[in-house]
Amino acid sequence: MILQAETRRHYVTAMRAIVYRSAGGVEVLDLTTVPTPAPAASQVLVRVQATGLNRADVIQRRGGYPAPAGWPADIPGLEYAGVVEAVGIGVAEVKPGDRVMGLVGGGAQAEFLVTHCREVLPIPPGLTFEQAAAIPEAFLTAYDALVIRGRIRAGERVLVHAIGSGVSTAAVQLARWLGATVAGTSRTRSKIDRAMALGVGEGIETAAGGFGSQLSQPVDVILDFFGGGALNENLRCLNPKGRLVVLGTLQGGTAEAVDVGRILRGRLEVIGTVMRSRPHEERVPLVEEFATRVLPEFAAGRMAPIIGASFPMTALAAAHAAMEANEVFGKIVLNW
Amino acid sequence: MILQAETRRHYVTAMRAIVYRSAGGVEVLDLTTVPTPAPAASQVLVRVQATGLNRADVIQRRGGYPAPAGWPADIPGLEYAGVVEAVGIGVAEVKPGDRVMGLVGGGAQAEFLVTHCREVLPIPPGLTFEQAAAIPEAFLTAYDALVIRGRIRAGERVLVHAIGSGVSTAAVQLARWLGATVAGTSRTRSKIDRAMALGVGEGIETAAGGFGSQLSQPVDVILDFFGGGALNENLRCLNPKGRLVVLGTLQGGTAEAVDVGRILRGRLEVIGTVMRSRPHEERVPLVEEFATRVLPEFAAGRMAPIIGASFPMTALAAAHAAMEANEVFGKIVLNW
Repeated sequence: MILQAETRRHYVTAMRAIVYRSAGGVEVLDLTTVPTPAPAASQVLVRVQATGLNRADVIQRRGGYPAPAGWPADIPGLEYAGVVEAVGIGVAEVKPGDRVMGLVGGGAQAEFLVTHCREVLPIPPGLTFEQAAAIPEAFLTAYDALVIRGRIRAGERVLVHAIGSGVSTAAVQLARWLGATVAGTSRTRSKIDRAMALGVGEGIETAAGGFGSQLSQPVDVILDFFGGGALNENLRCLNPKGRLVVLGTLQGGTAEAVDVGRILRGRLEVIGTVMRSRPHEERVPLVEEFATRVLPEFAAGRMAPIIGASFPMTALAAAHAAMEANEVFGKIVLNW
Repeated sequence: MILQAETRRHYVTAMRAIVYRSAGGVEVLDLTTVPTPAPAASQVLVRVQATGLNRADVIQRRGGYPAPAGWPADIPGLEYAGVVEAVGIGVAEVKPGDRVMGLVGGGAQAEFLVTHCREVLPIPPGLTFEQAAAIPEAFLTAYDALVIRGRIRAGERVLVHAIGSGVSTAAVQLARWLGATVAGTSRTRSKIDRAMALGVGEGIETAAGGFGSQLSQPVDVILDFFGGGALNENLRCLNPKGRLVVLGTLQGGTAEAVDVGRILRGRLEVIGTVMRSRPHEERVPLVEEFATRVLPEFAAGRMAPIIGASFPMTALAAAHAAMEANEVFGKIVLNW
């Protein structure tokens, strides 16, 4: 075991990777050559076959979301699917040749990445690398937000905003699987139609204005990406003891005239959550719970990643443009 | 058992009680005679010996906090200590003559009250009625806020505002008992001194301004009674994954310029909570958990209600004035 990292070091010492040359538009994206990382103790070297593009990658490209400490600062990419190439000292969980996927704090838009062996998930049987690359960020984030932070229960009702996002399409499936019903918002009618085919019971088109007045009845949990601009309207949509899980601040980081009295009387909760900055100690139990509870559902065909568009890594600029245009329903995946 | 309610009906059919004649100052308080309530199935008739005065009673007197459905609309009083006078059909938990205490949604400022048999707590051995009457609202509210909603853990740090209140003096004892350290705020130096004798490690005097800049290090849980006016300053005092439990809106029901980005990045929680409006189904498990886990600590002398002032029921106006003057450290108790 101790010699594994040595004996498997046949891989090249340089690899291709996307590097952000500075903060800005797609012109800062650079497909270049960098040193291949080496797995330290308890780490796994993964040859990346596919990787999901996330909103966070676009925000980081613009300069707004630096990588957390301990992760590549200028190589983006928060999730991957690929093959274990080598393992460091003390790794018993996976072995070279295993098909794996997972979340990382950065560095997934490269031919190789290193990650902790206990943060790696097996790719469910029957799924391609492209499909697997669309799972980790969307499903782990949605599972954490809906199940762990939002404590959704069977028979409850969930409102999911921006229903076409990767996280949202995962949340719809998880909510339905757990026996909850789902309302979803989008500015785009076609996204609502697709979301309703996925299990959303009430679709709310927001191109003309707010969602609160359109919602037929209050909900118990909200998954929100809008933040400040939608906080009060979200609070008004909650049943007593409702939970508003805030995953983003796309409509601003500040909220005015927040009805704290409503939070008090309704016994509401406003819960902020972000995945990327979490320490290893928190990622492991989440990955383990997800692997036990949810992963079998993919192999069984009861849950599926929703891929809206895929691009070769060489067309990354087009993928960024697609994300910024907000026209894709589901995940955007990049393939090597 | 079925005949108990009948055989025990020796009590008078009229009793003295405090009635709010309308909304206003202490002039609306009326000590008068009203019909004695009768225990229905599963209910207990309690002869009240002492009752705590709460901020909610004062706010209700001013017209701001109506009694929840199912409780006396115009007889105030949210907690009591006394003796079981009679029991309704199907009550096995307590029997006439038992010394009991508990929370009610209203009606405790009377010689008798009825309450559900499973919401009744035994008075810990060695405590007087006056002492017992100072326990339910303060300790159940603090336990629920700190332990159940705030999920405080040993080694964590708590900030408790308005450190001289009944709930706060209970929270300090509960936090210390659970292995947490406590910082407390007050406008009054003497209250801080008394709170530090009770276990508060850091006292913050707020007469001259804010608390955030004085706090030596961030905290994991905040017990807040201020609401809107203090929301942002509270958010700035929290460690990552910190929980702000809002129990009141004494500084306003609306908050401006709320830093939702901070809630998101810090993975913070804003949790509203109120005890009075809770349904029976929620009160019972709280009462049972508290009875098992905390009540023995009173008999053992490791926890104690803090009584700042006591009045005869006939001096209720003076008790209201004392509460409105904010000069009492600990509970205000009324005795028949």
